[in-house]
Amino acid sequence: MSDREKLYEGKAKIVYMGENPDELILHFKDDTSAFDGEKLAQLAQKGEVNNAFNAFIMEYLQQAGVPTHFLRRSGARESVVQRLEMIPVECVIRNRAAGSLCRRLGIEEGRILEPPVLEFFLKSDALHDPMINHSHIRSFGWASEDEIAAMTRWTERVNVLLLALFARAGLILVDFKLEFGRYHGALRLGDEFSPDGCRLWDAQSLEKMDKDRFRRDLGGVVEAYIEVARRIGVPLA
Amino acid sequence: MSDREKLYEGKAKIVYMGENPDELILHFKDDTSAFDGEKLAQLAQKGEVNNAFNAFIMEYLQQAGVPTHFLRRSGARESVVQRLEMIPVECVIRNRAAGSLCRRLGIEEGRILEPPVLEFFLKSDALHDPMINHSHIRSFGWASEDEIAAMTRWTERVNVLLLALFARAGLILVDFKLEFGRYHGALRLGDEFSPDGCRLWDAQSLEKMDKDRFRRDLGGVVEAYIEVARRIGVPLA
Ligand SMILES: Nc1ncnc2c1ncn2[C@@H]1O[C@H](COP(=O)(O)OP(=O)(O)O)[C@@H](O)[C@H]1O
Ligand SMILES: Nc1ncnc2c1ncn2[C@@H]1O[C@H](COP(=O)(O)OP(=O)(O)O)[C@@H](O)[C@H]1O
Ligand SMILES: [Mg+2]
Ligand SMILES: [Mg+2]
Repeated sequence: MSDREKLYEGKAKIVYMGENPDELILHFKDDTSAFDGEKLAQLAQKGEVNNAFNAFIMEYLQQAGVPTHFLRRSGARESVVQRLEMIPVECVIRNRAAGSLCRRLGIEEGRILEPPVLEFFLKSDALHDPMINHSHIRSFGWASEDEIAAMTRWTERVNVLLLALFARAGLILVDFKLEFGRYHGALRLGDEFSPDGCRLWDAQSLEKMDKDRFRRDLGGVVEAYIEVARRIGVPLA
Repeated sequence: MSDREKLYEGKAKIVYMGENPDELILHFKDDTSAFDGEKLAQLAQKGEVNNAFNAFIMEYLQQAGVPTHFLRRSGARESVVQRLEMIPVECVIRNRAAGSLCRRLGIEEGRILEPPVLEFFLKSDALHDPMINHSHIRSFGWASEDEIAAMTRWTERVNVLLLALFARAGLILVDFKLEFGRYHGALRLGDEFSPDGCRLWDAQSLEKMDKDRFRRDLGGVVEAYIEVARRIGVPLA
């Protein structure tokens, strides 16, 4: 597989050309980063676990009617996806307060947010992913009015679907981040859904089962990802 | 006037009880602050100028159909207003990039924003007025859905009205901040409109004629406020 053209290497994945111009291969790395890339580590097995996790969630969402870029898993660490023109906006939805929201608004971690809070961030390492709103997206042309409405609607829909999926597995979906893009003009959910980009707490103990274990040096990061995968029924090798 | 009950002393104004429970007196101080209260000064005559400026603008907006709290000027530094239940949200609208927007989004000062950018900030000294969005306002109950829509609409309307007013006086209205509140439940524009809370540039020279003169130590702060007042026809003693 070494003759493939590498298009981009990000913090957690490598993007290769696919078999045709409309497809890409996402390679899930063991690399983990936090705090704007200041904290870095390799976590054995993370790439495999996240690839399987993401495939499971994307197929689940696709079957529930969410348009996604996901086509198929093509290896332990790789999946084939539709090549999207990415929208440089991270869509974050929060069912409970955690992380940057607590710091920004002086709110205690765990507070239930009703209705859920939806936030947009500009995907820009150089600017440290600043929070933006609807009006910035429109004025700077990062997405159209219709695309903003669709990203909002799909993020809310994914939240409803995944809240229920994780709840059945004894997990609280605290928050998560989605990225969208355009496939021949049509909006699709892109990138990945894994414990790297969401917060999941055990519903009983409130133990953190996501990347916060890495951010906070709690240890057992991939072990927690595997436990979550097991509980929701992700087939792991 | 020393027997009046002082209700609140802020950074730029003192709020006194009015003649009846539905009214307040706003006393405009010479005090000027910037950078979260880190930079402070007294600028002779500023209180008088801002009181006259604000009265002129509020009456102009009122006549143009914008519901405001303004009742009448009651002295050189004082005006009588309807007592509002303030909404703790600052509504900022920007026709050109300046200030925090440039820093946050890496944009050069002066870039035209089309459509204008609308931003909400939580009015909280302790939290340093963090940027918030529609969904934070809803989820934390700072204003209702209808109030958010009305604040948005009125801020955009005030922008259209004042852009034209200042343009006729050879001035570019770069951005400004509004605060709203409820008068027996009905939304009203509150607080003040003065060069303390907006950016105004000379249309020819692009010279700054607003509080940025204070922030950047350019000197001639109140002189610039007076020049702007003169150009738009504010009667000054
Ligand atoms: N279907 C897709 N088409 C094109 N680009 C995609 C697609 N899905 C995800 N991407 C982009 O590929 C990159 C994935 O690698 P990642 O390591 O997550 O990068 P980053 O560090 O930029 O977040 C991201 O920049 C993401 O926006
Ligand atoms: N009509 C009104 N009714 C009640 N409060 C008002 C009204 N108009 C303005 N205010 C409030 O009065 C205060 C004005 O004083 P100011 O010096 O601007 O205070 P701050 O430092 O809090 O901005 C502000 O907190 C503002 O929200
Ligand atoms: Mg990424
Ligand atoms: Mg004020």
